[in-house]
Amino acid sequence: SHRLYEQWHPLGPVGVITAFNFPVAVWSWNALIALVCGDSVIWKPSPRTPLAAVAVDRLCRQVLERHGAADVIGLAVGETGIIGERMIADPRLPLVSATGSCAMGRKVAQVVGARLGRTLLELGGNNAVIVMDDANLDLAVRGVLFGAVGTAGQRCTSVRRLLVQRGIAGAMISRLTAAYRQVRIGNPMDPATLMGPLIDGAAVSRMQEALGEIVRQGGELIYGGRRLEGNYVEPAVVRSHPGMAILNEEIFAPLLHVIEFGSAEEAIALNNAVPQGLSSAIFTESLRTAEMFLSARGSDCGIANVNIGTSGAEIGGAFGGEKDTGGGRESGSDAWKAYMRRQTVTVNYSDALPLAQGIRFDL
Amino acid sequence: SHRLYEQWHPLGPVGVITAFNFPVAVWSWNALIALVCGDSVIWKPSPRTPLAAVAVDRLCRQVLERHGAADVIGLAVGETGIIGERMIADPRLPLVSATGSCAMGRKVAQVVGARLGRTLLELGGNNAVIVMDDANLDLAVRGVLFGAVGTAGQRCTSVRRLLVQRGIAGAMISRLTAAYRQVRIGNPMDPATLMGPLIDGAAVSRMQEALGEIVRQGGELIYGGRRLEGNYVEPAVVRSHPGMAILNEEIFAPLLHVIEFGSAEEAIALNNAVPQGLSSAIFTESLRTAEMFLSARGSDCGIANVNIGTSGAEIGGAFGGEKDTGGGRESGSDAWKAYMRRQTVTVNYSDALPLAQGIRFDL
Amino acid sequence: SHRLYEQWHPLGPVGVITAFNFPVAVWSWNALIALVCGDSVIWKPSPRTPLAAVAVDRLCRQVLERHGAADVIGLAVGETGIIGERMIADPRLPLVSATGSCAMGRKVAQVVGARLGRTLLELGGNNAVIVMDDANLDLAVRGVLFGAVGTAGQRCTSVRRLLVQRGIAGAMISRLTAAYRQVRIGNPMDPATLMGPLIDGAAVSRMQEALGEIVRQGGELIYGGRRLEGNYVEPAVVRSHPGMAILNEEIFAPLLHVIEFGSAEEAIALNNAVPQGLSSAIFTESLRTAEMFLSARGSDCGIANVNIGTSGAEIGGAFGGEKDTGGGRESGSDAWKAYMRRQTVTVNYSDALPLAQGIRFDL
Amino acid sequence: SHRLYEQWHPLGPVGVITAFNFPVAVWSWNALIALVCGDSVIWKPSPRTPLAAVAVDRLCRQVLERHGAADVIGLAVGETGIIGERMIADPRLPLVSATGSCAMGRKVAQVVGARLGRTLLELGGNNAVIVMDDANLDLAVRGVLFGAVGTAGQRCTSVRRLLVQRGIAGAMISRLTAAYRQVRIGNPMDPATLMGPLIDGAAVSRMQEALGEIVRQGGELIYGGRRLEGNYVEPAVVRSHPGMAILNEEIFAPLLHVIEFGSAEEAIALNNAVPQGLSSAIFTESLRTAEMFLSARGSDCGIANVNIGTSGAEIGGAFGGEKDTGGGRESGSDAWKAYMRRQTVTVNYSDALPLAQGIRFDL
Repeated sequence: SHRLYEQWHPLGPVGVITAFNFPVAVWSWNALIALVCGDSVIWKPSPRTPLAAVAVDRLCRQVLERHGAADVIGLAVGETGIIGERMIADPRLPLVSATGSCAMGRKVAQVVGARLGRTLLELGGNNAVIVMDDANLDLAVRGVLFGAVGTAGQRCTSVRRLLVQRGIAGAMISRLTAAYRQVRIGNPMDPATLMGPLIDGAAVSRMQEALGEIVRQGGELIYGGRRLEGNYVEPAVVRSHPGMAILNEEIFAPLLHVIEFGSAEEAIALNNAVPQGLSSAIFTESLRTAEMFLSARGSDCGIANVNIGTSGAEIGGAFGGEKDTGGGRESGSDAWKAYMRRQTVTVNYSDALPLAQGIRFDL
Repeated sequence: SHRLYEQWHPLGPVGVITAFNFPVAVWSWNALIALVCGDSVIWKPSPRTPLAAVAVDRLCRQVLERHGAADVIGLAVGETGIIGERMIADPRLPLVSATGSCAMGRKVAQVVGARLGRTLLELGGNNAVIVMDDANLDLAVRGVLFGAVGTAGQRCTSVRRLLVQRGIAGAMISRLTAAYRQVRIGNPMDPATLMGPLIDGAAVSRMQEALGEIVRQGGELIYGGRRLEGNYVEPAVVRSHPGMAILNEEIFAPLLHVIEFGSAEEAIALNNAVPQGLSSAIFTESLRTAEMFLSARGSDCGIANVNIGTSGAEIGGAFGGEKDTGGGRESGSDAWKAYMRRQTVTVNYSDALPLAQGIRFDL
Repeated sequence: SHRLYEQWHPLGPVGVITAFNFPVAVWSWNALIALVCGDSVIWKPSPRTPLAAVAVDRLCRQVLERHGAADVIGLAVGETGIIGERMIADPRLPLVSATGSCAMGRKVAQVVGARLGRTLLELGGNNAVIVMDDANLDLAVRGVLFGAVGTAGQRCTSVRRLLVQRGIAGAMISRLTAAYRQVRIGNPMDPATLMGPLIDGAAVSRMQEALGEIVRQGGELIYGGRRLEGNYVEPAVVRSHPGMAILNEEIFAPLLHVIEFGSAEEAIALNNAVPQGLSSAIFTESLRTAEMFLSARGSDCGIANVNIGTSGAEIGGAFGGEKDTGGGRESGSDAWKAYMRRQTVTVNYSDALPLAQGIRFDL
Repeated sequence: SHRLYEQWHPLGPVGVITAFNFPVAVWSWNALIALVCGDSVIWKPSPRTPLAAVAVDRLCRQVLERHGAADVIGLAVGETGIIGERMIADPRLPLVSATGSCAMGRKVAQVVGARLGRTLLELGGNNAVIVMDDANLDLAVRGVLFGAVGTAGQRCTSVRRLLVQRGIAGAMISRLTAAYRQVRIGNPMDPATLMGPLIDGAAVSRMQEALGEIVRQGGELIYGGRRLEGNYVEPAVVRSHPGMAILNEEIFAPLLHVIEFGSAEEAIALNNAVPQGLSSAIFTESLRTAEMFLSARGSDCGIANVNIGTSGAEIGGAFGGEKDTGGGRESGSDAWKAYMRRQTVTVNYSDALPLAQGIRFDL
């Protein structure tokens, strides 16, 4: 004569803050789940990519208007310091989904936390690829090159650190730099181009400073790294050593640290030694090593790949990471739950009302 | 030749902060799920209930020691300002589960958010019971009395507000006050006692101040409210009006606001008008009214009951609430997910490595 | 050092047998889930609706060919006694999904069972609508009329039995027969038509025989029932009594039994008294009565509706029924599991192999 | 104004038919889930193990009586031809869960199918272990020996076929036979015993006949196989060749076929070449080979293990198999669904009743 169940209701308006490097995709995979869940969506795109946002918003609005639902999406283009601050402080937004730097994420978490709202954070990565000495090096070189150089290293899932087992370090580095030499840099609209520019001059400067700092901390430039015209750069490969402070930082540019290790356990420790926890990969032919990497004692990242690089996201799997990456997950399995509120219902359809703790009232 | 799946790993050490009113239960339902998930647990009990915590910790430790696992639980008794502050700031605790006031929750959310940790917050409630004019008043009186007076109104799920439909307000109030008159106040160890003391003198003073403030804001004392010996009080019933500012506050004492309403829509609006969103209930015989209350346009609380009061929790259903209640959910369905980290795995077991965006490397 | 998980693989070729009354929909909701699951599909449509099947098969094949996947669907038009028999006996079809009569289902279950294959059966219904005396009769009349007369009563979810509470039987019958009088019978291509013909002359004869049998068993014709030109008939309403043997049969025609009852418990017992268990509905304003109907002691059907008729299917919910309806479920929640095989995997990635039951080998 | 959901109700009385080799465990994992689901359970144990059933039934009944629920379990000891036939034909048992031979399963599937009931079948296995030339032979020998000789080969998960890669066949066989020589045969109550007797004389005869038939079909006895006193036998190892008809049969005795193969693909084809599909295992150090074995193109069994034998069951994972093994799954993830009936509910709480297919009635 009692029924207990859980149900889910829409959460209300969701704020979505996106970064410049995926000016449309990140909004899409937030907004479409949110809309299906019955929420509305307010979008604050990166101030560096307003036009893509305006275009997508218009396209969607046209379709929505035909169904009498144009109001379910909104766009707020403007400076982060103004629009962004307002959004995260606004109590009318029960959920803020924010993609960007760890510093931004800390801010969002505090401001939204102070008003007891929810956040869904996709922050920086500092992703390593481990190459074991039994690996198929053809695969490993491809995976590392694509991950380190693709999109000019401006993905949260870009490969930042190449951890290579002692015996094969030389072979791996020479094959990798040979491949780097073939990377065509230029206009990203040209299909022959493999690597386009950085987003702006500040990004170029930051990469240059990082290269200087790496050398100061004991690292060594192995390949590339020169500033080219405009915002173009040569991708860089540096030999680094465990313990260098700069290894904890995400440099948003095509800059790859190569670090040697001895055992699989040592490689996993290095993989996990950074504050971020987004993506990770291992190249190995060994079942045992792969399983160790995938176990609870293995990679501490939200994404762990075997014989495939770190870069990219499969919409079918949960996307996001642990530690300073912010803990959020978008897409995959039960991603929708982040966009709804859960309600536990008890219906008493009897004539009696039993009380807890055996308490009896005689009224 | 690719496999994509999600798996879950333990999160690590979990901090559990509990309040005085459930000195054992809240730890239990956090700790036991966390332990099953492979986490360890550090417990900071309320400084007002250290002995219950010490006793439970010892009992559990004895059992755990027999299985060589005594280290999976830890206890940190002490002042909130010292122990609590340290716990929430400690980056070694990826998750802090905290039960207590909204003010405490805001603090926890900000400090843990600043280090990009996770929180599971169970904060204050300001729970209403709606009584429609078609309700079974026997059930309604029992449910309201138990919820308002039980544990001396010191539960987060205690009934704070009785919303009663115009036509039956007189009948409901007279039956309720008749029932209040029979409430035996005294030593909680005595089985004949229905209502024990408040937790301390400060709680008594706060209730007295609230009663004064209610009158100042236009409310009227209908029943009880006197201070008795020690920390004992008479439970109070007051007639209040929508819009009174004090209605937004959770007074942790046996103090019940009675508010009249006209339509079901009005009752739902009053239910949702407070900052907190923990529990709620409706008494009605009408399918239509009950379904409206349970719909997305109905109660905005984490718990919504029909013909049963707000007070208490079923371990089989998710427990927790929205808005200033903090959004956390303990127990129920997939509660375990809060205590684990999700990992998305892609395994490539082919000899090829297809790249995203149709990019081709000829290496 | 061990990992245990479950995964799902495609099942292989799935046989889909469909009935004349949904010549396309039933194939669609089987085939599309099966294809997404990685299975291929062989379709045996009703020999009375081969052209719809040929048309749909061609359309789908055109699209599939463009993607190099035309072989994933197949069509086998022909007599049930030849094609159907072969299909159900063929060990290459691990799953046969069959929609049709209970007699057909028994045959399929035995033949496929003898080869230890799987079946997904959607068989006959004998669906009742309960109208309580507190019901909104406007809704009830609409729901019953649409369900009894729509598609000329040739749906597995058509209303066959109207259970009406004593006090309102007269009112309900007079409103219902007034509505029946307005039903326009004719060419189903004409938008003004509400009811088209039966599928063939045999169906018309079977309805006429049933009407005769009803009278012989003590029932009484209240409205309609005459044979018109061709395969057209007048929809019929008969007053029947609990215990009449013909109430256990599904007459696939617009023939509605009206049966009076006293209490809700009695209505539920009548609802459950037939061999079939597909759909059921109750019209009531009472939460208590609705919950009783939806409880474990309530309707024993796979579908249970409140204030909405039995006819139709929501693709978002599991479709199918219990008892002689065959137990299968298509669509809804985890429908896909019927089309896949589950595999439990244990991977040992340690150097040791612990044996069960504490057995030790010294080798 | 509509709500659509699925809910689950108890199924009613469940018939559980168990085999002699797990006289208690199989009942337990059926009965306890069934009872939690709200069903009652009627148990028909093997006529060869009635006393274990009587003892367990009494123990459970004592506990249940204390809770006023003794009637939820029942025991029916007797001949299969009498009790079993009645049980499977009885329409009051909506579900029959049966564990035993494939022949028994075919019978159950037909009889229960004819009355449109449900079955949960756990039938015979014919389980292979694949040993690749990169395998850890220490693990492989242990896993095969335990699986082939444990419980005297009288488990549905016993290893029946050892598929060994060409290059290591000699080494594997000599290590395995060396291990067989150390197997202590005798009273199963003696802790030093590794292998007890067969269940009865008929089982001994059947093993002897099988050994003769193997030689006739071109196989060769490598080790053991002699009949000892009473129902004791020496475990047997035979060298067999793909294509031998007897390889399709499950001989319920400690009789192991050794078959050589060339490639992993060939091994998987041999693994899948038998009618049964219960358990399977591979020993390899290669990630690629293991993943192939676990893929949709790999093992077609319900259980697939890596570096661990076929014998045994983890209660945490679904147990059961495909093809002639009957398709049932007990334990693991959503095993409970087999013991309940699903109900799809739509509640209309509006004042309107929209009809499907855009049909409009003006009443």
